[in-house]
Amino acid sequence: MSYYFSKTINEGLDKAKERVTEGLKEEGFGILTEIDVQATLKKKLDVDFRPYIILGACNPGFAYEALKAEQHIGTMLPCNVILQEIKKGSIEISAVDPVASMQAIDNKPLINVATEVRNKLQRVIEKL
Amino acid sequence: MSYYFSKTINEGLDKAKERVTEGLKEEGFGILTEIDVQATLKKKLDVDFRPYIILGACNPGFAYEALKAEQHIGTMLPCNVILQEIKKGSIEISAVDPVASMQAIDNKPLINVATEVRNKLQRVIEKL
Repeated sequence: MSYYFSKTINEGLDKAKERVTEGLKEEGFGILTEIDVQATLKKKLDVDFRPYIILGACNPGFAYEALKAEQHIGTMLPCNVILQEIKKGSIEISAVDPVASMQAIDNKPLINVATEVRNKLQRVIEKL
Repeated sequence: MSYYFSKTINEGLDKAKERVTEGLKEEGFGILTEIDVQATLKKKLDVDFRPYIILGACNPGFAYEALKAEQHIGTMLPCNVILQEIKKGSIEISAVDPVASMQAIDNKPLINVATEVRNKLQRVIEKL
């Protein structure tokens, strides 16, 4: 089972982030968190890593439904969208499939919400 | 399969957050992100929710190993630790079990790293 949806676009990192942020917004997702993995690994371990960003995306309506259905689901929220430079000028953008990350949880209403979120995230990636 | 480790302590939210932050630090985790779920839901949906915080915890050494083993694992990082008020003066603290959230991924080196991280997070919760 694949656990993410992915697409590579020929843009720099800033422009790619702008496009994915816009695409997420069209599907009702805001970005709540951002981690610069490259900078964090440099700072903490002094190692060199490729440009890699983790965005924490949240559709508040669906998050609320998920939290009502499963009170510990915050351990798996928000839904991450990552951007990584796979070669100069090419950014791969990948969104988690929440149905995959939540598959250990036996909760039908939650799975229904996760499936709707999956469809939205898949659409964001396809439209890039 | 349970997907989190949990403990309830008789503290206010701020003190509970201080204690979990300290416990995480002892096991090598820093906190990279913080989401105030209650405030976010109020702002975005105008609904009332209990105090609920999502902390994104990261042990840089293990994160680096995971990223080298599985290039899209950023879709499931950092490891979340959540705090929620279950009644006045009682905070339940829950850490994700990364072995559960990553079970859709067939990658032995990654599972080995996730197992080590699981053990550390379980220890943090037990020692609270």
